[in-house]
Amino acid sequence: MNAPLLDTLRAAVGAPHVLVGGDLSAWELDWRKRYRGQALAVVRPGSTQEVATVVQACAAHGVAIVPQGGNTGLVGGSVPDASGTQLLLSLQRLNRVREIDAANLTMTVDAGCVLQAVQEAAAAQSLLFPLSLAAEGSCTIGGNLATNAGGTQVLRYGNARELCLGLEVVTPAGEVWNGLSGLRKDNTGYDLRDLYIGSEGTLGIITAATLKLYPQPAAKVTALAAVGSLEQAVGLLQCAQARLGAGLTGFEVMGGFALELVAKHFPQIRQPLAPSPWMVLLEQSDTESEVHARTLFESMLEAALEQELITDAAVAESIDQSRSLWHLRESIPLAQAEEGLNIKHDISVPVSRIPSFVAQTDARLAQAFPGARLVNFGHLGDGNLHYNVQAPEGTSAAEFLREHEAQVNELVYDAVAAHSGSISAEHGIGALKREELTRRKSAVALGLMRSIKQALDPDNRMNPGRMLGSAPTAPAP
Amino acid sequence: MNAPLLDTLRAAVGAPHVLVGGDLSAWELDWRKRYRGQALAVVRPGSTQEVATVVQACAAHGVAIVPQGGNTGLVGGSVPDASGTQLLLSLQRLNRVREIDAANLTMTVDAGCVLQAVQEAAAAQSLLFPLSLAAEGSCTIGGNLATNAGGTQVLRYGNARELCLGLEVVTPAGEVWNGLSGLRKDNTGYDLRDLYIGSEGTLGIITAATLKLYPQPAAKVTALAAVGSLEQAVGLLQCAQARLGAGLTGFEVMGGFALELVAKHFPQIRQPLAPSPWMVLLEQSDTESEVHARTLFESMLEAALEQELITDAAVAESIDQSRSLWHLRESIPLAQAEEGLNIKHDISVPVSRIPSFVAQTDARLAQAFPGARLVNFGHLGDGNLHYNVQAPEGTSAAEFLREHEAQVNELVYDAVAAHSGSISAEHGIGALKREELTRRKSAVALGLMRSIKQALDPDNRMNPGRMLGSAPTAPAP
Repeated sequence: MNAPLLDTLRAAVGAPHVLVGGDLSAWELDWRKRYRGQALAVVRPGSTQEVATVVQACAAHGVAIVPQGGNTGLVGGSVPDASGTQLLLSLQRLNRVREIDAANLTMTVDAGCVLQAVQEAAAAQSLLFPLSLAAEGSCTIGGNLATNAGGTQVLRYGNARELCLGLEVVTPAGEVWNGLSGLRKDNTGYDLRDLYIGSEGTLGIITAATLKLYPQPAAKVTALAAVGSLEQAVGLLQCAQARLGAGLTGFEVMGGFALELVAKHFPQIRQPLAPSPWMVLLEQSDTESEVHARTLFESMLEAALEQELITDAAVAESIDQSRSLWHLRESIPLAQAEEGLNIKHDISVPVSRIPSFVAQTDARLAQAFPGARLVNFGHLGDGNLHYNVQAPEGTSAAEFLREHEAQVNELVYDAVAAHSGSISAEHGIGALKREELTRRKSAVALGLMRSIKQALDPDNRMNPGRMLGSAPTAPAP
Repeated sequence: MNAPLLDTLRAAVGAPHVLVGGDLSAWELDWRKRYRGQALAVVRPGSTQEVATVVQACAAHGVAIVPQGGNTGLVGGSVPDASGTQLLLSLQRLNRVREIDAANLTMTVDAGCVLQAVQEAAAAQSLLFPLSLAAEGSCTIGGNLATNAGGTQVLRYGNARELCLGLEVVTPAGEVWNGLSGLRKDNTGYDLRDLYIGSEGTLGIITAATLKLYPQPAAKVTALAAVGSLEQAVGLLQCAQARLGAGLTGFEVMGGFALELVAKHFPQIRQPLAPSPWMVLLEQSDTESEVHARTLFESMLEAALEQELITDAAVAESIDQSRSLWHLRESIPLAQAEEGLNIKHDISVPVSRIPSFVAQTDARLAQAFPGARLVNFGHLGDGNLHYNVQAPEGTSAAEFLREHEAQVNELVYDAVAAHSGSISAEHGIGALKREELTRRKSAVALGLMRSIKQALDPDNRMNPGRMLGSAPTAPAP
């Protein structure tokens, strides 16, 4: 039935790049292994023009397309459904760095470039591309943009959106919009760039981007501070922002229980300060020198001690020590995985309301689910917490999820709403949170979004069933 | 004929706030006096709900709406056409600062707040709202957002878009979208905020916004540097960015002829350095101290002298001296007005291509219009030049404009296109550049924009004839 389409695709991209049958789980199974689909075919075009040809062919045959970068998304947005009718379009062969313009502080790259390769290409010219997140070794810049990825330096440099000046996009009709631009100011019509950024492949396919670069800082120094409460953590943030300004490039909070799990499962990782209800990892990027950075850090932390915002602190004395502090922070997701599955939330609230959000939600969870444990960590500087709920000690994690996930989500998302927050700070909606979005977003906003989707993809062929879609998606069996 | 509508409007906002007849030129004539329209009425609602009621009434009567803030736009986007059929909706009575959340570094304000009032409300809490531009004493934040205003600190803090976290908007159907958000991370659907920002009132009416604030810097110091060429100016920018990082908050270039005009018309304004082909005004905002700022500036400028990027420099030694350097920069538009009308261009190109753009365009203009003089200044750090063409000395400016404006525009915009630039960096499209946009924007981009307009404002009642509109607009007689 699909033979004519497959013939057209093979002619367009070459037969070796049209995969049907065999083990396609690298493309069909999502990273968290919650969604396993079946593709009509996996197609790997090698150029923007080939992407356009594939999209045109699918339009002619009425076939839906699921675009995919590194397939590292956390919300099931980049794998096909189980129907066997959706084409999986992988961008991974579009992986050229097209241009670096050092004097303009920009680089233009194909969508399939791996984030780490983008960082390295910038670094090779002594420049910085600041987007940084756990999956950087395999996620692609196209996926980062399609989901408006966040990460650890948002506080200073913004999300993926703020790091992008222009896009190249293949529209649902298979036309190429060349919106690649190295301009920092351009007020000529609607902001199509930011509409496509974060649209999760539902309005078209990002094939290239022009990104912002920055000079490499002269030094990066980290510090660890123990705080007794989240109120103090917020006070420390204000103190650090006032004294370090844009030099403050990281401000990560780690809950005491999260660090206990690291100590339990990775005892070899050094924790330099005595246990505390909360620990903050601060990073400073300095344009002058390491000595200057350390001096500033020390005087800021002394002030914070005097103001009783922190109870103890340590400034890393070498790059190795800095790395080891980041390693501690990055080990939390792995340590919680060792402890067993938990119920994850990627939420944000205004920074000022973080303490009240956590206090109220912790208390309600303790009442509703006695013994449930909270693995709490995240990007406090951005108001973004990974607020994860772990089964009571000694009980079955799988059973806890099965029995309580829906109720736990409801409780947490109600609290998020009461604190004017977001149910998806940096991971997006995908298939996982689609129903939740429909329930919780205002009717006016949903109406505007649906009008836009209908206008730009009237046949609902771009990543249907994601974000706003209506097509069913099949969870893994 | 319009009596029933006017009755409804009077009932909605109070009779004193529905103006018909009398001198309405404050609302009907644009700031540059190029567009004089005639409104069906001027309506001044006092709340978001009143705006919604007005929009609903206009929808019921099929009447088009032109939203207006401070009426300081430069492209004729905020005055009605001459038909007498369009309602002028002024946001000026929506002027409350709703909330300042210091710990979250945000403030929420009504759209009609004057920019300077927003700056002052932030400053009263020792915080900074960094948007700054010539019209700040009368432009409104709603207009700034509707046009994605730029100004003098874009280099560090971005355009209006980057300074806004959330919006409240009345849609063309008269519904209220409450997208006010103090979140720095929120990936729950399409980016409606950035779609409305820069849409020039053609998709709905911005009634309030949540804005980003920053800690006030401890000191601001400016410096003036003489450079022999734009290549050197770009080199100086790179040097300053590498050494000052985010501390560099201003980098303005001023052409020699622009400064000659200031000397001619405002001889009382001190110009501290001997004339040079180009002069650069640098501003540094420092989180530590004035001494630290000055020391950094001096060592950076010494390095620039050694690298032969600059020929001379002076660092302001007091706040008064800093102000007087900014005053010099700000006098250029006034000095060129004294010299007579000129043909203005608000263009941007990648920073790296500024020297080539100016060299080529200057040469072509000199050939096509012998004696034409170039008043050239702008925000070099953002690639944004106000590239203005003045009549040959001793000739009639009015006649030069009448005879050559179209050809000059064509020549300049062709060069902009050849350098991958924008014909409107920070002023927008409005009525003035609508035809130019249609001619120069890609068909794919225009198609996407028109689909969005059609989807969100199917009856074309929001600021018709602007940006993409089809209704005629009448220039001033």
